[in-house]
Amino acid sequence: MFQTITLLSDFGYDDHFVGAIKGVIRSIYAQVCIVDISHSIPPQNVYKASLVLSNAYYLYPQGTIHTAIVDPTVGSQRKILIAQANGHIFLAPDNGLLSPILSKYPHKIYVWNENIRFRNYTSSTFHGRDVFAPLAAWIARGIPLEYVGIPQKNYQRLDVGIYLKKENCLMGQIIWIDHFGNLISNIPTEDFYGPNFCIRIKGYELRTLAKSYFEGNPQQPIALKSSDGYLEIAIRDSNASQIMGVKEGEKIVVEFL
Amino acid sequence: MFQTITLLSDFGYDDHFVGAIKGVIRSIYAQVCIVDISHSIPPQNVYKASLVLSNAYYLYPQGTIHTAIVDPTVGSQRKILIAQANGHIFLAPDNGLLSPILSKYPHKIYVWNENIRFRNYTSSTFHGRDVFAPLAAWIARGIPLEYVGIPQKNYQRLDVGIYLKKENCLMGQIIWIDHFGNLISNIPTEDFYGPNFCIRIKGYELRTLAKSYFEGNPQQPIALKSSDGYLEIAIRDSNASQIMGVKEGEKIVVEFL
Amino acid sequence: MFQTITLLSDFGYDDHFVGAIKGVIRSIYAQVCIVDISHSIPPQNVYKASLVLSNAYYLYPQGTIHTAIVDPTVGSQRKILIAQANGHIFLAPDNGLLSPILSKYPHKIYVWNENIRFRNYTSSTFHGRDVFAPLAAWIARGIPLEYVGIPQKNYQRLDVGIYLKKENCLMGQIIWIDHFGNLISNIPTEDFYGPNFCIRIKGYELRTLAKSYFEGNPQQPIALKSSDGYLEIAIRDSNASQIMGVKEGEKIVVEFL
Repeated sequence: MFQTITLLSDFGYDDHFVGAIKGVIRSIYAQVCIVDISHSIPPQNVYKASLVLSNAYYLYPQGTIHTAIVDPTVGSQRKILIAQANGHIFLAPDNGLLSPILSKYPHKIYVWNENIRFRNYTSSTFHGRDVFAPLAAWIARGIPLEYVGIPQKNYQRLDVGIYLKKENCLMGQIIWIDHFGNLISNIPTEDFYGPNFCIRIKGYELRTLAKSYFEGNPQQPIALKSSDGYLEIAIRDSNASQIMGVKEGEKIVVEFL
Repeated sequence: MFQTITLLSDFGYDDHFVGAIKGVIRSIYAQVCIVDISHSIPPQNVYKASLVLSNAYYLYPQGTIHTAIVDPTVGSQRKILIAQANGHIFLAPDNGLLSPILSKYPHKIYVWNENIRFRNYTSSTFHGRDVFAPLAAWIARGIPLEYVGIPQKNYQRLDVGIYLKKENCLMGQIIWIDHFGNLISNIPTEDFYGPNFCIRIKGYELRTLAKSYFEGNPQQPIALKSSDGYLEIAIRDSNASQIMGVKEGEKIVVEFL
Repeated sequence: MFQTITLLSDFGYDDHFVGAIKGVIRSIYAQVCIVDISHSIPPQNVYKASLVLSNAYYLYPQGTIHTAIVDPTVGSQRKILIAQANGHIFLAPDNGLLSPILSKYPHKIYVWNENIRFRNYTSSTFHGRDVFAPLAAWIARGIPLEYVGIPQKNYQRLDVGIYLKKENCLMGQIIWIDHFGNLISNIPTEDFYGPNFCIRIKGYELRTLAKSYFEGNPQQPIALKSSDGYLEIAIRDSNASQIMGVKEGEKIVVEFL
């Protein structure tokens, strides 16, 4: 009862794609609760999708079915994964999207058995509607994963940016620029060696961690711990990415003194 | 039980419009399930709305009430249609939005009886809130269509682009550019006369139909069958519309050899 | 039963923010209905959020919990308000967001008791996930407001633009440009002194109120009563803001003859 299916994709909101997927799900399982995590992942950006999913999925009730469709190789030989990990169920193309979650938790993986078809016609370009949606709905209704999937051991890994812990410094990258232009790195603040440090990014030097965005002076970058525990750079009431000219991939270094 | 109302509009997500409509619906019928098909139809683009609705509605459970509000002539003499077709119920301004569906299926049409008012004040600029929302909610609750509508025979037709089947060729148009920049035409691939053909669009020539986006070479346009059965032009991992300089309305021709 | 929580924010749809909030709510109260009013408020724009909330909230069922998170000073000393007014419950930072509603209706105000924590870790940058979401969910489940809040009398006021009623004229401002580019002022049309007037804005002069957008000539601005009762300027099938070069804050004057 009150089973939840979440949706994450790069389909945008301009077309019928998301509406089509929801129609298929509701036709199979009218009572299910469908929640959009986001459909604004940049087209084909599997990496961004994996970050958004990792930061959101675990907040849902155990047993939620997370359906993540950023799928540039749809219609090719790529597999569709059905995975169990950390008490949740995941559906996604086997293109690395699930790798941050699967690499962190014990898991059980299946690949969709392509002999199990759900619709009269399965297109080769819109598996969101023709495979993912019915798969999610039937799993929500309780179909055993063994019925629709074939056990598998491996999955595609994703390059998640360089992060090095050296003797006197941590070297990482900005891996995510959020809606407000804040810069989130892949350096966990719990890895900091001590309270005396200098953070260097794009010519800026920062020597303290602020508690909140509000502590900063207008136009001055501040460093703080992101809501998910990583080193973040922000500018109060402003877009740090634009003002500092920093894009995803930028190097960031923390030197300890 | 579990009745569904879908919403489709050009209201965008910046204002209170969509939130207002959902509030009115839920105040009348709290248990109903409201699903957004899209609110990102370009302003006043009835044609795009009709395409998105046609491609999504039929995937919903029978009896779903589809509420499509792209309504540039709101407050004028234009009628509001309440239509039954293909097992679904549709509410839309009589401006052609429903014409692709009504022209394809047997149907029953009513126009909203303007003597039936739902709110103390009915604005002349926001019928989404003041007419469509309560109409959808009351119909979902089971009010007979005869109570709110007056039977009518006709409806506005929509110009859906030129498509000609000639002796040795099919001549059509790009009628839809999707979120990924893929170009979808109005030529059904099932109309193809044979396997030897040359597709011409904007100086490009294509002689095969690919099975999936993945088959193409980067930067090279490919032709394929869209997920809804029409001739589509795409570029793998790229935006074909931008790279090829093609906009909606562009001519596309398939010559058979 | 069928309790509703609405969400309004500047989080956008690009990140995990909205998905995270919905996960937290559903983990606490799976049956609740979550409705998005908008997540496209311009970053940090408390004023726009207050307008959108005011125009939408009252259409929801009595007892709905409206959660409005535009919160540039998150993590500072700013309070989180829990307010009852006009039969609805509101959660928002005490930054003026609720002031148009609270100044209009009798109300009861609490501030979140920071000793009541909901999660193991409460970040200082994402109270949407760590405070607002669990607060909304527990209140929806029926927890008394006294249990989570401390009674308070005052709240932050918001500067809502200048509006003056002079002997022969009304002087106001454009306070909101909607998705279609229509210009909505803060002059209630019910304040008009009579039927003979001249509306002046950015060099344009308008002497009649149209009934609908459709009455105008293409490219010619028209004045009309907005769906919420204010003087609005629009151009039929066009973006008045772009064509007239008018932004939020522009002066508008109605002279009576």
